[in-house]
Amino acid sequence: MSKPSIPSGTRDFGPDQVDRRNYIVDIIKKAFVKYGYRPIETPAMENLSTLMGKYGDEGDQLLFKILNSGDFAKGMTAEDLSEHKKLALKICERGLRYDLTVPFARYVVMNRNDLVFPFKRYQIQPVWRGDRPQKGRYREFWQCDADVVGSDSLLYEAELVLMMDEVYAELGFPVEIKLNNRKILAGMAEVCGIADRLTTMTVAIDKLDKIGPEGVRKEMLAHGISDEAVDLVDKFLAAQGLESLKPLLADSGIGQKGIAELEDVFAKIRRGSPRNTVAFDPTLARGLNYYTGAIFEVKALGVAMGSINGGGRYDDLTGLFGLKGLSGVGISFGLDRIYDVMNELSLFPDSLGNAPRILLAAFDEPGFDFAYDCLLELRRRNVRAELYPEPAKPQKFLKYANSRHIPLVGIIGSEELAAGKIALKDMVSGEQRTVSVSEVD
Amino acid sequence: MSKPSIPSGTRDFGPDQVDRRNYIVDIIKKAFVKYGYRPIETPAMENLSTLMGKYGDEGDQLLFKILNSGDFAKGMTAEDLSEHKKLALKICERGLRYDLTVPFARYVVMNRNDLVFPFKRYQIQPVWRGDRPQKGRYREFWQCDADVVGSDSLLYEAELVLMMDEVYAELGFPVEIKLNNRKILAGMAEVCGIADRLTTMTVAIDKLDKIGPEGVRKEMLAHGISDEAVDLVDKFLAAQGLESLKPLLADSGIGQKGIAELEDVFAKIRRGSPRNTVAFDPTLARGLNYYTGAIFEVKALGVAMGSINGGGRYDDLTGLFGLKGLSGVGISFGLDRIYDVMNELSLFPDSLGNAPRILLAAFDEPGFDFAYDCLLELRRRNVRAELYPEPAKPQKFLKYANSRHIPLVGIIGSEELAAGKIALKDMVSGEQRTVSVSEVD
Repeated sequence: MSKPSIPSGTRDFGPDQVDRRNYIVDIIKKAFVKYGYRPIETPAMENLSTLMGKYGDEGDQLLFKILNSGDFAKGMTAEDLSEHKKLALKICERGLRYDLTVPFARYVVMNRNDLVFPFKRYQIQPVWRGDRPQKGRYREFWQCDADVVGSDSLLYEAELVLMMDEVYAELGFPVEIKLNNRKILAGMAEVCGIADRLTTMTVAIDKLDKIGPEGVRKEMLAHGISDEAVDLVDKFLAAQGLESLKPLLADSGIGQKGIAELEDVFAKIRRGSPRNTVAFDPTLARGLNYYTGAIFEVKALGVAMGSINGGGRYDDLTGLFGLKGLSGVGISFGLDRIYDVMNELSLFPDSLGNAPRILLAAFDEPGFDFAYDCLLELRRRNVRAELYPEPAKPQKFLKYANSRHIPLVGIIGSEELAAGKIALKDMVSGEQRTVSVSEVD
Repeated sequence: MSKPSIPSGTRDFGPDQVDRRNYIVDIIKKAFVKYGYRPIETPAMENLSTLMGKYGDEGDQLLFKILNSGDFAKGMTAEDLSEHKKLALKICERGLRYDLTVPFARYVVMNRNDLVFPFKRYQIQPVWRGDRPQKGRYREFWQCDADVVGSDSLLYEAELVLMMDEVYAELGFPVEIKLNNRKILAGMAEVCGIADRLTTMTVAIDKLDKIGPEGVRKEMLAHGISDEAVDLVDKFLAAQGLESLKPLLADSGIGQKGIAELEDVFAKIRRGSPRNTVAFDPTLARGLNYYTGAIFEVKALGVAMGSINGGGRYDDLTGLFGLKGLSGVGISFGLDRIYDVMNELSLFPDSLGNAPRILLAAFDEPGFDFAYDCLLELRRRNVRAELYPEPAKPQKFLKYANSRHIPLVGIIGSEELAAGKIALKDMVSGEQRTVSVSEVD
């Protein structure tokens, strides 16, 4: 019998962890509902045709693919074995979802005739990626997404930022919410004469945190962008505030539009009096290619941790599935990283209120029988009550109560049984008094 | 661009469906917490070595297997292609979980040193099976499990039955909870002289609902059980009540033990005053081989639907992973079938309380600006408020409010703007009055 284990990069969550994760999810969900987002859920498995090509070549490789049922190898020849990437697509039709945005776009397109736009949805589900596991990076992790599609109103950019602000205020740790706009990045590329290299530039800038400014320069140069252009990009990235970008982008229509959009969004956000810093960051790029307008990123202050929350506007995500012209904007909370931040800062409440309130215990069979009556009465009154499953000695049932963080133990010995009462022990103070079970609540 | 779709046997859940599913889950979860069960969550993917061989040969075939990353075909030859079952295990190390019981047993064994027994856990997660999809049977469906391991006290059998009873009373439809005991089935087999064919007999009896008594007879005969034995089994299955079984099982130690256990469990259940019928059923067999004591099954009354809830005691589930002697007992609610029953009986409350309370809307830009202020004020007071994302005509925003079931619309025209008020329209009565936004709650 080999020792059981779980796949690398995956985790079990024990009772305290689940309670704490639910504590975070409940706060996020409450905000989603308050802001008018409605829940949907999509299947863990999607057709690979839905997923492939949406996350770049690297993403395609990181998709978990599910082997077809039955004789999947039927008709295959030795030749097929030589190209494993092609072969994978012959023997796998389905894969596990990689994020919640592409399934959402697929859902919107499939339900286009029944949905009323703008459609605001939230979705809280796990996603799977075959990344190399490392600290803070898992192969199964949870995303908490809110998106609205079918409107290009900047109201939603502001609303999503204020919603994130509210969630972190409630969770109890300060964050910085950074904003940029893909149109500003497009304007930069235009002014620098590398409009056709926008993606190369964006992908390089996106790595700033990891590889530093010198690394970004090198990457752009390595991809054939000229010294002059790279110098100009540097100048943009050093801009302090939206105002200082205006003259630099004076000649770019798209750049000006990006600035105007962000100014509108910032004005709306300010009127909502956010409790956290909300700041423009010209170096914010976001990796995903489908963003076309505002982009967001949130970092926890005082903790070494990557982005815990991001998002942005995408003008044509549903176009990938044949439904053009539906603009959307959304955000995604990274539950696992928020959990790690909360843990590091010791921000979880001591008691999350779900452990039993009282453990009943008896020394012998007659006492156990009475204890069972007490148990039934307490539960009838909706008290979270437990009964130690057999007559036992105090050290046994007290240890059990302690380990389960049960604050009260109702002990039944022969005296208590004769009086029809219980000896109620407070596990924190150690105090003990004889009471009727009807007094327990 | 091909039309997007989702894999056969899987489903999307829209907002109303998610609300309704959560309504059921919350009631089940509340009962689990009240009875002292604590949540755990396990990964969707398990090592195939954990899953294979636990659900019979058929189960092994129904497991969804995940293709290994990288060059999974490396070193393979044409010969490997001829045996697809073997090949699958060469190219797949992981699979999707098939139920929540085996992952739970695996969890208990991996955490044996940190857990305090009896360990009571609940787990509410999806499972995946490659069954042929049909009405009421899906390839992704949710189980809501509660189990306790590390005690053989019959207290838990009674507690689980009372907990199921409480859940259905709360959900609002009547059920019949049927009980049997595998020891009684073992006793039957012993008395019929087919102790070595217990599994054959159990598997046949388990199909009674599907194939009828004649089908059960045929199946047993086809498997080489004698006419005399089959006649005797029939006699057992026709038994009315535990009492009438006693003489029939007088010569079987294990049969007598099964009867004694069930009598104890029934006595404890009766003291809890269940609101639904709880009855002994000698024909209840349950398919899974690991049950060794009490077995449960729940059927909704007045609805044509299979079992919606089942469970039982298993004496050595963790033994499969090398930890012997840990008795357990558990139940599993089938969320999808309960949903179907509730839907068929129209038992969901009309409003599940999550739709926005008010939609603000304006005719022009100045009004929209004021409406945004109103939106911020309402949200500051935690009112679920929305703003129609652009100035619009009434037919547009009223249609939107209607389709989203928003009961109030706050309209801002030039008069309202001048007065700093809103025209509050009640979407149910059609009434409209001018109020200050501070009056809305």
